[in-house]
Amino acid sequence: MAAANGVHGVRVGVIGGGQLARMMIPAAIELGVDLRVLAEAEGMSAAIAADRVGDYTDTATVLEFAREVDVVTFDHEHVPQDVLRALVDAGVPVHPGPDALRVAQDKLVMRERLSELGLPVPDWARVETVADLDDFIADHGGVAVVKTPRGGYDGKGVRVVRSAAEVAEWFATIAEDGGAGALLVEELVDFRRELAQLVARRPSGEVVAWPLVETVQVGGVCSEVIAPAPRSAGRLADVAADVAITIAEGLGVTGVLAVELFETSDERILVNELAMRPHNSGHWSMDGSTTGQFEQHLRAVLDLPLGATGSRDDWSVMVNVLGGPAEGSLTDRYAAALADHPTVKVHNYGKAPRPGRKIGHVTATGDDLDAVVYEARAAAAFFQD
Amino acid sequence: MAAANGVHGVRVGVIGGGQLARMMIPAAIELGVDLRVLAEAEGMSAAIAADRVGDYTDTATVLEFAREVDVVTFDHEHVPQDVLRALVDAGVPVHPGPDALRVAQDKLVMRERLSELGLPVPDWARVETVADLDDFIADHGGVAVVKTPRGGYDGKGVRVVRSAAEVAEWFATIAEDGGAGALLVEELVDFRRELAQLVARRPSGEVVAWPLVETVQVGGVCSEVIAPAPRSAGRLADVAADVAITIAEGLGVTGVLAVELFETSDERILVNELAMRPHNSGHWSMDGSTTGQFEQHLRAVLDLPLGATGSRDDWSVMVNVLGGPAEGSLTDRYAAALADHPTVKVHNYGKAPRPGRKIGHVTATGDDLDAVVYEARAAAAFFQD
Repeated sequence: MAAANGVHGVRVGVIGGGQLARMMIPAAIELGVDLRVLAEAEGMSAAIAADRVGDYTDTATVLEFAREVDVVTFDHEHVPQDVLRALVDAGVPVHPGPDALRVAQDKLVMRERLSELGLPVPDWARVETVADLDDFIADHGGVAVVKTPRGGYDGKGVRVVRSAAEVAEWFATIAEDGGAGALLVEELVDFRRELAQLVARRPSGEVVAWPLVETVQVGGVCSEVIAPAPRSAGRLADVAADVAITIAEGLGVTGVLAVELFETSDERILVNELAMRPHNSGHWSMDGSTTGQFEQHLRAVLDLPLGATGSRDDWSVMVNVLGGPAEGSLTDRYAAALADHPTVKVHNYGKAPRPGRKIGHVTATGDDLDAVVYEARAAAAFFQD
Repeated sequence: MAAANGVHGVRVGVIGGGQLARMMIPAAIELGVDLRVLAEAEGMSAAIAADRVGDYTDTATVLEFAREVDVVTFDHEHVPQDVLRALVDAGVPVHPGPDALRVAQDKLVMRERLSELGLPVPDWARVETVADLDDFIADHGGVAVVKTPRGGYDGKGVRVVRSAAEVAEWFATIAEDGGAGALLVEELVDFRRELAQLVARRPSGEVVAWPLVETVQVGGVCSEVIAPAPRSAGRLADVAADVAITIAEGLGVTGVLAVELFETSDERILVNELAMRPHNSGHWSMDGSTTGQFEQHLRAVLDLPLGATGSRDDWSVMVNVLGGPAEGSLTDRYAAALADHPTVKVHNYGKAPRPGRKIGHVTATGDDLDAVVYEARAAAAFFQD
């Protein structure tokens, strides 16, 4: 579909056609990178750069797509290991690579590797039976968080339980889902707030960290991000950056890595989740940092020098548009929203509104945190009923 | 080529596939606007959004293209008046419209209209004969600037002369070129520097102005832009904004309007040229202003509320990449350029290097003008031999 975009340019192939692939397109156009997307279906968010529609779990489809690009990267972490290994065996540069992605694909593997790296994580265990799970719950004050090792996102596959019986059906299915017949159980962390540390690492080793951010989740879905995280300067920011850089280097991550963190009531930092790709917690950087995460991801996977990650303003606040209007589209609300909020940046993912679906975000920046939070929330409210 | 990009989105058609159309694409993607481009040829700068390749001087081709969009706008000002009128007659919203574009298409008409609006312009005359031109030269200290009314850009069609004989061949051809058999002659302005005032106006009347900028031309081609223009705060900035807003309103311009100005040695402002589209003097705004000119142009032609035009940093400096490397491409120089200049933003137009050709630009921002100028020039130098 899209013609060659970039004379003598480099070609980056993105597997997956969602909004993360979409938001790589503007950065690719500015840099003169020829971005090609293997989309799951027609009409997806990244359709303008979608060269091909096909099944990312099919090795032949992915190999054929990869033949036309210089490096393969991802909109999501769901490409199966055998497909990833086939790409590597065929000599295709894949960033992040299969070994790193394996850690993001399986929460049990993630907990094992983070523990091996000596990083702070919640108490956790691999449980294969109801009895094991009930033991863990009993040892942790009668409550725990159970997670399916694979396939969860935005709160799916995560459940707070007081009895193993509450996830009985998960035990019934784990044998089939590639999770090696086990669930992950973790202590329910008494956290003060959630933070996220975004870093980028290129294959030749350079790694950079953006400012630590605070994330607000509603129902397991990111709702709002404040950059930098208030009251985080100094030790907290240093520890978070160290943790994320240790993970990026320890796991050999290439591209953007997001590390979701808990700040506990007793002022510790614990690693919650990892995402080995541009991440919702980093959308603020498109408007709020010298280098946005999508530009940085392209630079990183191409092994180009990384850009400066400082904030352009004292504060940036990103608010997700979740669901959107009950009737019509985001653009129907522009006349009202843009008139009231001339400084806010609106990002529209080109997706049809649907309850709970991430269909866009808005970012405000400035030097007065209260005003910036107000601007971002008020603008986003125009897009919700 | 490009699939529908934007669910229930609005569709903007751009006539012309050069770098201005290309730089509208990232803004369109962020806003969820479905941008379609009618390109002059395959493989042009805006190819990723080029739905169609065709002749913009052919009414049927343009009408067919326009049927698929909600509004038509332009990468350049060269669409013939009869084609523009046919669009309007067919009920297509065209921004800027034919009456405004006519003023940008013909420098004699432009001088007439600006004079009617009472705006400060160099002494000028319409000359049809060698004798008339020699008279004007004699009346203006023995030197004058002669311009062909149509078709000039980047210094082409402009000549400083001391005798009408120096443009004898222009007199021989003006009868054929649609310029109504006349040339434009202007006094050679004793200017201290060149400035440019960028504004945007939407059909329903709202108009906004960016900070006044200083432009540096080399051989008639823009080389560098400093935003805001040093030592321009106060009267100079106010006068320039007033002039540009008067032009936008007086001529009914819709979309972005760039007004190129002379600051004379005796501290007057004179209007040099107009461009009714995003303009090289406004490229800094992509990285340096809250609202970049390409986003603003889309908002304006869609009659959406306009974005804030303030500078994000004290200073922004844009340097054009003219010509580019003798061998290879811009991307070949990224490893060196980006390593040395992690805060600079590089914009690559996806065009093959060729002597004198605008193939990209770089922008630096910050609070120390000398440092910002150094950064932008030093980064751009990596892309030139």
